[in-house]
Amino acid sequence: MKDSINIAVVGLGQIGIYLLNELNTKKKEIKIKTGKNINVTAISAKNINKKRRFKINKKIFFKNPLDIFKKKKIDILFEAVGLSDSISKKVVETALKNKINVITPNKALIAKHGDYLSKLAEKNRVNLEFEASVAGGIPILRTIKEGLATNKIKKVYGILNGTTNYILSEMENTNETFDKVLKKAQKLGYAEPGNPKLDLNGFDAFAKVRILSALAFNNKISNHKCIMEGIENIDLKDIKIADQLNLRIKLLGITEIINGKLFETVHPCLVSKKTYIGNVNGVMNAVITEGKPVGESILQGEGAGPGATSSSLLSDLLSVLRGNIKYPFGIPSNKRKSVKVFNNDQYSNSLYLRFEVKDRQGVLSYITNRLTKYKISVKRIIQTPDKRNMRATIVIITHKTTEINIRNCLSIFKNNKNILKFPTLIRLYN
Amino acid sequence: MKDSINIAVVGLGQIGIYLLNELNTKKKEIKIKTGKNINVTAISAKNINKKRRFKINKKIFFKNPLDIFKKKKIDILFEAVGLSDSISKKVVETALKNKINVITPNKALIAKHGDYLSKLAEKNRVNLEFEASVAGGIPILRTIKEGLATNKIKKVYGILNGTTNYILSEMENTNETFDKVLKKAQKLGYAEPGNPKLDLNGFDAFAKVRILSALAFNNKISNHKCIMEGIENIDLKDIKIADQLNLRIKLLGITEIINGKLFETVHPCLVSKKTYIGNVNGVMNAVITEGKPVGESILQGEGAGPGATSSSLLSDLLSVLRGNIKYPFGIPSNKRKSVKVFNNDQYSNSLYLRFEVKDRQGVLSYITNRLTKYKISVKRIIQTPDKRNMRATIVIITHKTTEINIRNCLSIFKNNKNILKFPTLIRLYN
Repeated sequence: MKDSINIAVVGLGQIGIYLLNELNTKKKEIKIKTGKNINVTAISAKNINKKRRFKINKKIFFKNPLDIFKKKKIDILFEAVGLSDSISKKVVETALKNKINVITPNKALIAKHGDYLSKLAEKNRVNLEFEASVAGGIPILRTIKEGLATNKIKKVYGILNGTTNYILSEMENTNETFDKVLKKAQKLGYAEPGNPKLDLNGFDAFAKVRILSALAFNNKISNHKCIMEGIENIDLKDIKIADQLNLRIKLLGITEIINGKLFETVHPCLVSKKTYIGNVNGVMNAVITEGKPVGESILQGEGAGPGATSSSLLSDLLSVLRGNIKYPFGIPSNKRKSVKVFNNDQYSNSLYLRFEVKDRQGVLSYITNRLTKYKISVKRIIQTPDKRNMRATIVIITHKTTEINIRNCLSIFKNNKNILKFPTLIRLYN
Repeated sequence: MKDSINIAVVGLGQIGIYLLNELNTKKKEIKIKTGKNINVTAISAKNINKKRRFKINKKIFFKNPLDIFKKKKIDILFEAVGLSDSISKKVVETALKNKINVITPNKALIAKHGDYLSKLAEKNRVNLEFEASVAGGIPILRTIKEGLATNKIKKVYGILNGTTNYILSEMENTNETFDKVLKKAQKLGYAEPGNPKLDLNGFDAFAKVRILSALAFNNKISNHKCIMEGIENIDLKDIKIADQLNLRIKLLGITEIINGKLFETVHPCLVSKKTYIGNVNGVMNAVITEGKPVGESILQGEGAGPGATSSSLLSDLLSVLRGNIKYPFGIPSNKRKSVKVFNNDQYSNSLYLRFEVKDRQGVLSYITNRLTKYKISVKRIIQTPDKRNMRATIVIITHKTTEINIRNCLSIFKNNKNILKFPTLIRLYN
């Protein structure tokens, strides 16, 4: 690689503009660490005049990012638009075909097109780096690819979404409802003001799970249907009951090899307050890997925000500048295995079930009979009457049971006049 | 780098022999990940016939490791003898001069001669890698050098010695004395059977602190006198009292920049049971970095043992095989700053002081008067009488005070007939 490096930044939202400022202010430090002079010679965004946190050089601005390839000689391109397809895909694709190294925090793009794009990068002998796509400032991808390179990893799990973790922590701390805390999160910039859905429903965490699986197990990126649940149905009531049981609710992303097959999921979990993961609160992310021979490794750090994301983007930049050409997923594309999928129906857990019922005789035994019929054995029952409204809350903690079993069992509760809403189900993590 | 790589392993103790087995069994995987064929073509140890966990190939055995350089063409050498000088230094030095890449878990060597050896590596354009020298399987050096490469780090601290953390945890859990638990640790292989001193007195953790400082702050390795205390004087009594106060004792290694100057220390700390670091128990290590813009990052994992250490040694190997030539300390030797040292006397903390006294009137006021004289203000006093023996235990928690102040203040307690032993001092971590 030559000594003077031209850089393009495509996308100047929260992350892109912060990155641009870091690139401009850390030139000297980067020169010391890598021997390379970097110059940002092209930037692109939808709107040249939008109000931004840092000033931009309008002389190098391109409204259409694809024009950059025609008019400039670029060595490294940052893609920070963040779409899973359309212009994000087109820009990355074109860059790789033009033998330009690409660095991106775009998890949606990598989770969907990572296999294709990494092949393209390998064919053109350039880097495609995406450390910032998973867990913000935590260098988890680098750790799996390099720090733990020869370990046999059997499981990776953790808190992969800072927005939802903030909301759950804040509900517990303030006793405020989901809606109220969500608004606070939006005000603080933790949740998207327009559409926070992709954070809340688990989609964002799931894209990260898919990327982690591919790296940890040397698989192609999976695309099968999985159990994916967000936190939209978590009620303040559940958080309070969990608290009494010395438990805490966390949205976990999990990927593991069970009997040689890949199992991936994202769903809320009840975890003990005494566990490590039960104490990762606020916007923090944490990723736990179980590998041989290294044992359990934990990485924790800020999972979101432009500062943390830029830290990872620049670590990728330094890696590229040091001339460290690598396979994007750690091994050559043609050596990555196709995915054998574990049957979701066989996933098994202890369950927390919360029933809101009319306070009438026989309701509890109706519920427990139904559970017994499906061989779901009860570990604990907590019934709290609400005399004034002639209602009661029944919480049942079960022993381990499979997904298929619980689905079949619970179906009947949809249409029972004594059961006021379909029971809330939260899996216990063990 | 050519496709077929010759490797030498010098030192076949616990770590060396485990590594050798990993190198032999993971050839194929390493070929897939790097494209290189590795062959161990030379091994060396004191005794060819010693009983070892894995078999060795006696045909490639050298009694004198320096003979390897005369008789074999080696590309990468592992040094696993573990001495700070003598043969360890000689082997590494000779290898680097012969343009052989060196990988070592030897913290004593790097903490003492790292500046000289890294210059030598740079001059000869080979790698000197030592990920395994700090915190076993945790890829903390790689994370500072690469994952957090452009962050401005102001502090790194943590539990850097698994042996002492195991002993402290086990004393709390079992109520057994220091000596009893130490014997258990030696039986389990956590502490050296012959001479556990370097773990217990903080020396081992301190070598790691010095390496972390050099990487985190781009300083030369410091060699000034520091506050270094081990756990030899921690009594079961202190652990029990800490427990009542909702605190836990941890041996922390700390390096930070205070007013532009470097401060390094290793000493036992009282930490809240509610903190993250207060819950890292057993043989686990944890390292916390505070950087900008990334914020606080935590890495936790197994800090010792041949499995964890080999994991780091192999991550270094893959880095070298991928042709990733790097400055051993992240930046060129001539850019590393010389150390400006913070005055240890000005280090300040709240203190836990435990006095064992004769149960006589006036003793407590004698102690508190002395503290007042040195402007050490008391936050809390807990006096527990031992009527039968006419003695009492007085625990005093103070507000913040400086080292110089406390040293001057405490000196008088050496020669007081009512004070049965010199007070135990443990700093509170805040």
